[in-house]
Amino acid sequence: MTKDKIVELYLIRHGIAEEATNDITDEQRRLTKEGRQKTEKVAQRLKKLGFSFDLIATSPLVRARQTADILIEAGLSSQIEECTHLAPGGSIHSWLEDWFKPRNFTPNSQLALVGHEPCLSSWAEILLWGEAKERFVLKKAGMIGLRVPETGSVLGCSQMFWLTPPKYLL
Amino acid sequence: MTKDKIVELYLIRHGIAEEATNDITDEQRRLTKEGRQKTEKVAQRLKKLGFSFDLIATSPLVRARQTADILIEAGLSSQIEECTHLAPGGSIHSWLEDWFKPRNFTPNSQLALVGHEPCLSSWAEILLWGEAKERFVLKKAGMIGLRVPETGSVLGCSQMFWLTPPKYLL
Repeated sequence: MTKDKIVELYLIRHGIAEEATNDITDEQRRLTKEGRQKTEKVAQRLKKLGFSFDLIATSPLVRARQTADILIEAGLSSQIEECTHLAPGGSIHSWLEDWFKPRNFTPNSQLALVGHEPCLSSWAEILLWGEAKERFVLKKAGMIGLRVPETGSVLGCSQMFWLTPPKYLL
Repeated sequence: MTKDKIVELYLIRHGIAEEATNDITDEQRRLTKEGRQKTEKVAQRLKKLGFSFDLIATSPLVRARQTADILIEAGLSSQIEECTHLAPGGSIHSWLEDWFKPRNFTPNSQLALVGHEPCLSSWAEILLWGEAKERFVLKKAGMIGLRVPETGSVLGCSQMFWLTPPKYLL
């Protein structure tokens, strides 16, 4: 992989959310007070570390959208969009074909994807090794940093430089 | 993997070291001033985060031993020992059979191993995936955190919860 032909991809799991009930569907679950506070601290730490995302794409589910909004409020990006591929059960193959590849991001773009487990860590494993074996532990409000080739083969050809639970960012 | 039957394994790469010359063999290479300072900051941050290792095992090479000594000086452990398996080219299979398994560590022990690339990230991949494909980027003074089963099969059966370059710990 040449150094100047990659995109940095940050996979961010939503913060702690309320439980689903008869009145609250999974899609509607909101961040709890603790989830919101912890996510805000993570966002502030990312800002201090100098992060600036060209785009934040988020699952449309409320707890993910709220997490992405917190990242925006912290000044980590000015661009946000909802992406149905990032909802639970979304396929990385569809995401790559329909969303990532057609956009032809410029090299060294920094993209943040806000979504759910086990999707995000499975996507990371597929990008690194070609298949998912549930070997990563990605906590709520935790994140994964990947170097993804900007063109050509992506699956099984990416590299990982960061995986962190939120507690090491607080 | 049951939660109470794992050992936490931290793979720590030595800090920035001087180049080898006609007078300085690879084994003798010492940390540079920058390497020492950055490693000290990482050690202090780990201490603040509450880390306490039951044992620090280190490659006997000078730059690794100096890195391990900095961790000891920061109060991260009172136990240190040199381990030839951690020298460049060391085999994880020999390390597991000769060093790790016979010791029968108590569950939830926290062990730090200080060594070299590409060994450390290859060891991590083998523990997670059963084989190494060079998919992790482990910077000098960076670290990897793994949950390794305390008994039974270890290779391809471990989990990873942390991978960080030093810059996110400074």
